[in-house]
Amino acid sequence: MFITTVNPRFGDVDGLGHINNTVLAIWFELARNPLFRIFNPTLDISFERWPLIMAHTEYDFVGELFLPYEVEIRTFISHIGTKSFTIYHEAWQQGRLCVIGKAIVVHYDFTKRQSTPLPADKKLLLTEHLLKPAKG
Amino acid sequence: MFITTVNPRFGDVDGLGHINNTVLAIWFELARNPLFRIFNPTLDISFERWPLIMAHTEYDFVGELFLPYEVEIRTFISHIGTKSFTIYHEAWQQGRLCVIGKAIVVHYDFTKRQSTPLPADKKLLLTEHLLKPAKG
Amino acid sequence: MFITTVNPRFGDVDGLGHINNTVLAIWFELARNPLFRIFNPTLDISFERWPLIMAHTEYDFVGELFLPYEVEIRTFISHIGTKSFTIYHEAWQQGRLCVIGKAIVVHYDFTKRQSTPLPADKKLLLTEHLLKPAKG
Amino acid sequence: MFITTVNPRFGDVDGLGHINNTVLAIWFELARNPLFRIFNPTLDISFERWPLIMAHTEYDFVGELFLPYEVEIRTFISHIGTKSFTIYHEAWQQGRLCVIGKAIVVHYDFTKRQSTPLPADKKLLLTEHLLKPAKG
Repeated sequence: MFITTVNPRFGDVDGLGHINNTVLAIWFELARNPLFRIFNPTLDISFERWPLIMAHTEYDFVGELFLPYEVEIRTFISHIGTKSFTIYHEAWQQGRLCVIGKAIVVHYDFTKRQSTPLPADKKLLLTEHLLKPAKG
Repeated sequence: MFITTVNPRFGDVDGLGHINNTVLAIWFELARNPLFRIFNPTLDISFERWPLIMAHTEYDFVGELFLPYEVEIRTFISHIGTKSFTIYHEAWQQGRLCVIGKAIVVHYDFTKRQSTPLPADKKLLLTEHLLKPAKG
Repeated sequence: MFITTVNPRFGDVDGLGHINNTVLAIWFELARNPLFRIFNPTLDISFERWPLIMAHTEYDFVGELFLPYEVEIRTFISHIGTKSFTIYHEAWQQGRLCVIGKAIVVHYDFTKRQSTPLPADKKLLLTEHLLKPAKG
Repeated sequence: MFITTVNPRFGDVDGLGHINNTVLAIWFELARNPLFRIFNPTLDISFERWPLIMAHTEYDFVGELFLPYEVEIRTFISHIGTKSFTIYHEAWQQGRLCVIGKAIVVHYDFTKRQSTPLPADKKLLLTEHLLKPAKG
């Protein structure tokens, strides 16, 4: 699990007095930095060196988030496939689970414009962050 | 169906040279304005007058979007429930379908903090925008 | 003058019921697309082909902007220097001038990491969009 | 001085490989939270309780910001007027000053839609964060 702490800002609050739903796309992307580092330690973005492309994101808004309380984002891996993996996020505020997110990321070669198998060593590193580790 | 046209801006393009995934959350929210008007014609945001809360959003990135081409967002209703309805979005660029989105919106009373049934007249108006399934 | 029309979205409205100040950075950047095209007609972003870097932006909030009214952004050139030029923006809503903006853009060689003189042909094209001072 | 630390996210990087200029509007707004707390300790946004409106912002981009290095935002007060005050921000990355910002905020009564004098006690609290304190 990776933990990322974010602080809401004034403009994250919409006209209904809570954090706007689109803000979670931003926060969860930020929370993916440690996972991105598994594939590119210096987060050096280039066609030659960045091997991931986003295929799917989703967000379940199970509770409202408010200014000014800190938000803790907990990030896990929920599935590891042949050419893709699924990231699972939770956003917690004051002990309440408020948003659950998922992102399916494909291992991708931008120079050839095609998906490629996840390398075994990366799969192993992802395994360390599995939401429910396989039992022994 | 509602059509909303957006133009990508310089900063919507990320380090991989395509529109960043989080931008779609923004564009699809903009594309919901005409649906919001069914419930609140002047888009007057207040606890007393705004009767909708976001429960779920999702995004399938089936093709990349690029600067500088115009993006056409087509918005439909895909499901009408008792207390909620589902919005279906497509983002098209140069004749290619690039992103498919869904948003589940709950009819909600912000003064009582509880969901409430969709009024029959609103359901009827939503019905006019139902996504038509392909016929057999 | 270039005119760019934008429609506010739900989440552009902050807790005070008006368009948040940070949204103008987004809208004015969008309104610079036609000026960027003078230097790069296809808006093809690369170190070799993109010759502009942002040096300064500013925003004067002289009136509040609200949902749901369309906003017209009027964009001019207010100064042409040797290696830079100044863009002047106005955001109008329902006949009211609400925000005035400026952006100073430097002609820049990203491969050499240094500013370079504005080419004479580009200066001429910029001149066509000069803000005309009121005559005495 | 207030210090706010932010971490750039993947999508903050634009097509030129550096942090897009519009991101600074977001980061500096976040960095104003401790100043907003002087006027509204719980950051409770309502017309009755929020006494500030933004009049002006500006940004000087003196160096480029990059992923993945942490950014430190240093926030001071640079001027205290009768009905307004000026906030001064600096964004530092790896020991380099990259962006300088200013924001002029007006003390404002949203219920009466008019500016109002800064209370003496608030002025005193702002004074503690002056960029260059007056010498004795």
